[in-house]
Amino acid sequence: MQYVIEDIDAAELARRRAIYVPLTEAVRDLIDATIRTEVDDTVITQVRDEIAAATAKLRAEQIVGSYGLRKTPVGDSVSWGNVAVGLRNAIAPPIMVESSPDGLHWAELTLGAAYEGPTGLVHGGIGALILDHVLGATAKSVAPSFTGTLTLRYRRGTPLGTLRAEARVDRTEGRKVIVTGTLSDADGVTIEAEGIFIRPETS
Amino acid sequence: MQYVIEDIDAAELARRRAIYVPLTEAVRDLIDATIRTEVDDTVITQVRDEIAAATAKLRAEQIVGSYGLRKTPVGDSVSWGNVAVGLRNAIAPPIMVESSPDGLHWAELTLGAAYEGPTGLVHGGIGALILDHVLGATAKSVAPSFTGTLTLRYRRGTPLGTLRAEARVDRTEGRKVIVTGTLSDADGVTIEAEGIFIRPETS
Repeated sequence: MQYVIEDIDAAELARRRAIYVPLTEAVRDLIDATIRTEVDDTVITQVRDEIAAATAKLRAEQIVGSYGLRKTPVGDSVSWGNVAVGLRNAIAPPIMVESSPDGLHWAELTLGAAYEGPTGLVHGGIGALILDHVLGATAKSVAPSFTGTLTLRYRRGTPLGTLRAEARVDRTEGRKVIVTGTLSDADGVTIEAEGIFIRPETS
Repeated sequence: MQYVIEDIDAAELARRRAIYVPLTEAVRDLIDATIRTEVDDTVITQVRDEIAAATAKLRAEQIVGSYGLRKTPVGDSVSWGNVAVGLRNAIAPPIMVESSPDGLHWAELTLGAAYEGPTGLVHGGIGALILDHVLGATAKSVAPSFTGTLTLRYRRGTPLGTLRAEARVDRTEGRKVIVTGTLSDADGVTIEAEGIFIRPETS
């Protein structure tokens, strides 16, 4: 995993979070409103112009290209552009993976209208994104690794709403870390997943 | 597949596209700028307030819940909330699946900073979302069906930029439609996929 060091201390990291998280949450809310609005066309056009003007202000100074993986000198992750977990990426729910000493990794998240596939259900590919990310984070708790194979079994539709993803390392075989996991709603498992993650030869 | 009929003709559909596509594109552009901006904190806070105000205008009238599957009386899809293909969903690249008479289904799309996982690369879960959607659309060309199993083999990282997804029906076995496909960049295949899609018993 290649990353760059963001040379900031904990106080500066907290300051930046306090600035960027509210901006990203406002954009996330706008995504939802853009899907669900029923206001008149004139308002839609006016709002479009306002958003374009706001975007131009943000683009007055910006990085070239994508955000990339970043860490602080003490190892805190600042990968805020990441589509699954990034605090500055309004596409990200964001997923926050937690873990317990017994090796369980999990994330709880609430998905609204912006993640829909079939009516009222989470898009199957979003279920795949969540499980790829949570299983990948679980594999990385053993060693840096990339997804080799991911197999998803869809037991039933996953309703929009509050969900929980869980994963554990099942076993390791040479350079392979095999991780299993599930996505569930309040009524139980909706998707089962198995991932084979590969450690690079250099690790 | 349950859907509702949006009782509009082709002219009204075109009129709505002309209003909503520019709004969604403006929001998509804002998502990218939110990740990449380096402007001062005061500007960030000001933009956040402007976005919140614009969102409030959109929310003055809105549907309850999610957008759902919709079609016009002549069968045009109006599933504009869908996270993969929705014209009103700023998360969607959007994917536009095309097909040829020989059974090939494909989509070309360009992914920027908002879809990043590892530095400079598309998140593996976004590759999964794209392939789930394109393989699913391919299966639906045979019969209405839901994803049963999806297997993804990651050959190498998928660079951000212009990509092409392709899929074909491999075979059918009873209620199962087996579809294979790939995601590729200019240098060739990055992810291979196989999906088993299940026709409901009633179809």
